[in-house]
Amino acid sequence: MRAWRYDSFDGIDSLGLHEAAAPAPQRGELLLGVKAVSLNYRDLAVLLGRYVQNARPGLVPASDAAAEVLAVGEGVTAYRPGDRVLGAFHPRWFGGEIPPGWVADSYGTGRDGWLCERKVVSQEAVVPMPEGLSFAEGATLPCAAVTAWTALMGPAPLRAGQTLLTLGSGGVSIFALQLAKAMGARVIATTGGPGKVNRLKALGADAVIDYRATPDWGAAVRALTGGRGADRVVEVGGPATVNQSLAAVARGGEVVLIGFLSSENPGIDYFRLKGTGASVRAITVGDRAALAELARAVAVTGIKPVIDSVFPFAEAKAAFRHLETGRHVGKIVIEVG
Amino acid sequence: MRAWRYDSFDGIDSLGLHEAAAPAPQRGELLLGVKAVSLNYRDLAVLLGRYVQNARPGLVPASDAAAEVLAVGEGVTAYRPGDRVLGAFHPRWFGGEIPPGWVADSYGTGRDGWLCERKVVSQEAVVPMPEGLSFAEGATLPCAAVTAWTALMGPAPLRAGQTLLTLGSGGVSIFALQLAKAMGARVIATTGGPGKVNRLKALGADAVIDYRATPDWGAAVRALTGGRGADRVVEVGGPATVNQSLAAVARGGEVVLIGFLSSENPGIDYFRLKGTGASVRAITVGDRAALAELARAVAVTGIKPVIDSVFPFAEAKAAFRHLETGRHVGKIVIEVG
Amino acid sequence: MRAWRYDSFDGIDSLGLHEAAAPAPQRGELLLGVKAVSLNYRDLAVLLGRYVQNARPGLVPASDAAAEVLAVGEGVTAYRPGDRVLGAFHPRWFGGEIPPGWVADSYGTGRDGWLCERKVVSQEAVVPMPEGLSFAEGATLPCAAVTAWTALMGPAPLRAGQTLLTLGSGGVSIFALQLAKAMGARVIATTGGPGKVNRLKALGADAVIDYRATPDWGAAVRALTGGRGADRVVEVGGPATVNQSLAAVARGGEVVLIGFLSSENPGIDYFRLKGTGASVRAITVGDRAALAELARAVAVTGIKPVIDSVFPFAEAKAAFRHLETGRHVGKIVIEVG
Amino acid sequence: MRAWRYDSFDGIDSLGLHEAAAPAPQRGELLLGVKAVSLNYRDLAVLLGRYVQNARPGLVPASDAAAEVLAVGEGVTAYRPGDRVLGAFHPRWFGGEIPPGWVADSYGTGRDGWLCERKVVSQEAVVPMPEGLSFAEGATLPCAAVTAWTALMGPAPLRAGQTLLTLGSGGVSIFALQLAKAMGARVIATTGGPGKVNRLKALGADAVIDYRATPDWGAAVRALTGGRGADRVVEVGGPATVNQSLAAVARGGEVVLIGFLSSENPGIDYFRLKGTGASVRAITVGDRAALAELARAVAVTGIKPVIDSVFPFAEAKAAFRHLETGRHVGKIVIEVG
Repeated sequence: MRAWRYDSFDGIDSLGLHEAAAPAPQRGELLLGVKAVSLNYRDLAVLLGRYVQNARPGLVPASDAAAEVLAVGEGVTAYRPGDRVLGAFHPRWFGGEIPPGWVADSYGTGRDGWLCERKVVSQEAVVPMPEGLSFAEGATLPCAAVTAWTALMGPAPLRAGQTLLTLGSGGVSIFALQLAKAMGARVIATTGGPGKVNRLKALGADAVIDYRATPDWGAAVRALTGGRGADRVVEVGGPATVNQSLAAVARGGEVVLIGFLSSENPGIDYFRLKGTGASVRAITVGDRAALAELARAVAVTGIKPVIDSVFPFAEAKAAFRHLETGRHVGKIVIEVG
Repeated sequence: MRAWRYDSFDGIDSLGLHEAAAPAPQRGELLLGVKAVSLNYRDLAVLLGRYVQNARPGLVPASDAAAEVLAVGEGVTAYRPGDRVLGAFHPRWFGGEIPPGWVADSYGTGRDGWLCERKVVSQEAVVPMPEGLSFAEGATLPCAAVTAWTALMGPAPLRAGQTLLTLGSGGVSIFALQLAKAMGARVIATTGGPGKVNRLKALGADAVIDYRATPDWGAAVRALTGGRGADRVVEVGGPATVNQSLAAVARGGEVVLIGFLSSENPGIDYFRLKGTGASVRAITVGDRAALAELARAVAVTGIKPVIDSVFPFAEAKAAFRHLETGRHVGKIVIEVG
Repeated sequence: MRAWRYDSFDGIDSLGLHEAAAPAPQRGELLLGVKAVSLNYRDLAVLLGRYVQNARPGLVPASDAAAEVLAVGEGVTAYRPGDRVLGAFHPRWFGGEIPPGWVADSYGTGRDGWLCERKVVSQEAVVPMPEGLSFAEGATLPCAAVTAWTALMGPAPLRAGQTLLTLGSGGVSIFALQLAKAMGARVIATTGGPGKVNRLKALGADAVIDYRATPDWGAAVRALTGGRGADRVVEVGGPATVNQSLAAVARGGEVVLIGFLSSENPGIDYFRLKGTGASVRAITVGDRAALAELARAVAVTGIKPVIDSVFPFAEAKAAFRHLETGRHVGKIVIEVG
Repeated sequence: MRAWRYDSFDGIDSLGLHEAAAPAPQRGELLLGVKAVSLNYRDLAVLLGRYVQNARPGLVPASDAAAEVLAVGEGVTAYRPGDRVLGAFHPRWFGGEIPPGWVADSYGTGRDGWLCERKVVSQEAVVPMPEGLSFAEGATLPCAAVTAWTALMGPAPLRAGQTLLTLGSGGVSIFALQLAKAMGARVIATTGGPGKVNRLKALGADAVIDYRATPDWGAAVRALTGGRGADRVVEVGGPATVNQSLAAVARGGEVVLIGFLSSENPGIDYFRLKGTGASVRAITVGDRAALAELARAVAVTGIKPVIDSVFPFAEAKAAFRHLETGRHVGKIVIEVG
């Protein structure tokens, strides 16, 4: 079987296609035929040498995949050959608290990821893929969509009638927008120019704010909500946007911290945060239970994951190059099987 | 001002229209001009002498109303004349635990209800009516829709992707169906004959089961959900249906007890309940916070309360007679103002 | 290594001690040296042929154990030899929803249990045993104490200042009493005669009701709580007691269904349940996250699991015979290692 | 009746004792005889002119009181003369979302407070005082203890076995320590010198860190918890301490923002906050339901509010002067009735 691996961390051409013997499942494990992989910004960041805390040459990249069960190890009764599954982003976080070793367990940085033809994982590291999703659609869910789900859920899930604020049109933001509309929320989105306004409205946004034209967009959100503010903010921007997000959030609301798109660090104003009467919650994708729930919610609500483009397995480097341009809207998928 | 009052409890003709001086608001109170009232089965039951625990002749009936603020008492800053409001079903239950005196506080049984032209209440007994609702629509919400909201919320709110089972096409069931669809759930509805199947599907039901053709509809629900069962059941039927509801509910799911439509009492099978691994939760409409949230959710999601018919104030008895026929689908409204 | 196995289901003498080769851990697995096992009534019921749905001759009994890691399989980083662990009652339920195959996965009925010297399990099937517990104490936790924890937690955890009602002095009831006191609740306990009153008070019960002297103990609980009722009831009795439990529960409270001590089935009165305004929740022990939390809570609060008696491995049949007498208070433990 | 009022905001001597006619209750109101008042730092800050956003000369200071019902207005059935009550800090926030007008509704800044002999309030603005508390003890609860309760509760209440970190020995911190111990948590406290170490240990702290000797106390908390960190931090310090609190908090934990003791504003490091995987929650005391629950929890658990000193009504200025010294440990109470 073939697998892409990091030969070094010097850019996209550091990816190398390698041949290896197909692995065999042991007790409690599944042999999977990988069908589709989706890329996240972190996958590119590793290749560019910006996120190598744990990554080492030789690892297989990518955290998000849909696959088919080819064979099961001894004692496995929950899956059978032919079952379709999604890989959980955190292979050993199932619910409750995240296990201490989660960093070393991360696909593509601490352990082999999914950009390969065959893979053996524990039966606990996957969930069934719901009916009605294609492999390409399923592969978009483990990181970006679960992050959006965790952002909307958490200890006080978003409720119908509340207002969500999303920033921009990255993968997490689009999933959050789609999910929140499907849950009965009102959605206000920001975007950086007129080009994407209609796209965001077509996806369901009730109002779109151009943050270039309206740099004080926190106040604009407050005005659009009768002074109340947004009940939840999916903050993917980072330090450059968080103080505006705090200006936008409602008393009792929540800003969910996801982003590190900006790297300067002006700090969060303590008194502004205190004065919001709101919460700020930092998250790390989500657990296996979240993936199972999210996948079911996508299937039941008929949400169509926005796929920007699909590349064949042999063209994986082209997929990374497209990701690097930043011109995509939605997820970039590599078909494997 | 005029008010309908119980002259006795001998049937619908026990209602009498009485003239009285308009009341004046004291400190912290609002003088309201009632605009619309909706009826619930319990309003009829009182008149028929079936629900008179606390009711006494002379009381004004009806628990559900939309109104306009005409004047405010000393110290009221939260409302101004012209504001539109909805009366909370429980006038002194705002959140947390229901207060011990709630039975005596109930409109139309323990204290004067809303079927009158002018009414004075505490500023705490109402919530603002959201933009976009008519008075008639607003008046349908305090009892039936809040009951549906409480049934879908509670300590473990229904989540997108889960399955709701509703029984029949009464007010609570229809609101539960509409709300659950707006929240991203799948809805299975039962009905008692082919006539209402299309109506329920038009309201969003994903599947409809004719309980006359399929008396073992609990098993049918399980089959429709791949053996899993419904995550939540809004049980409005009572003892005649609850054991089927228990057959339908998923492990970890919840049957919400609302109904007393049937009066025989065969009892709930202990071992069936134990074996479900599910919960049964008995509710009492809901608190003021639930009404505020529900009304906002209705406005934001664009749910249209299903109104069967509208009667003028002077024709209140005709409204009750229509309710008595049981031929309505949706709420019966009396316009007052 | 030696293991006790069911040779048949004809009583305690159906247990046979068998020799077998020590198992070897595969990838992701642990080889454990079992140190202590505690018994539950269901273990006896299987031997007596009363609970054999899935059990088959040849299986090893017992669900509750504490063990030491002797060796780890490939890829295991979370545990090292010498670590002390507790086996989770449900080896594949970690959080979120219980997996569909949980019945077949149950120790001692669907798969080999813990009454043996060496055992290989997935690294996901155990949790670390907290400092400060002995192996015997740790072994008492997986079934009875986790059941008590799940009963006190759930979607609306018991809060300091609330009142818990426990029934009798079985393992679940005693753990519920100890945990609730450690959480700041008031505890009312029932018991069947004067003999155990002082024992329950010494364990922290604020009030004890003799249900023989006070058959209408539901009303007695209500009187002891100023008419309010108990916020939570750990209902281990079954159909013979549940209607009294419903008489005892507070509006908005919860009766947790655990028991099947009684086998007659008079049914639950629908209108009594509806009238409580409370919930009834049926549970199935709890997930791995609950065991981890419970074990930490026991260690931090200094709760001492009540151990009735300890038997050596070779005397396992004597342990079962002692369980059969019903004269124990607290858990019966078999030391293995 | 006599009342202390702000004559100006020029210091403690700006307080003036004024005579007025006793007020009369209107419909739904209570006439209260105030029995005890406790002081909070904000009461002093107003007098010193540091917190006057809404305060105006002539207002009665103080937010925390215990009182006896002397008479009830028309329609009041929930209370009778002789009942003992506690005033809720927010007189119109009962549950659900805080009402928009809460700032103007605040005692001692937006409306008359409690430092007077007779007071009329809505029946909704108080809760029953539990048996077993003195008026002086009850008067300590509405602000500091409810703040501590809200900090420990919130959307994910602290659980038995978790670890709480408190800062210093102010009123909120001491209540948080006492409540958390009563709930089965482990408590680590910081203090600014050896003098208070024993006092904090006597109140139940499991470990005390001297932040002068250990300026990097965030790391010390992490070391004391085996690297895990504190599950919850009651952050009363403000910007000067919050980055240490972030260093101390566990992944998935929560830092509750209460304080503004320090006034410099170095900002919160965005990446540190993001990296915690924890939440920061800003709170505003709590709602009426929280006061009712907290008061019950204090009574049931036998927590003794720590009272530093008690002053007679005529010596109210001396009480403020004692508060100004900062040498108190626990609450300063003024007895009124």
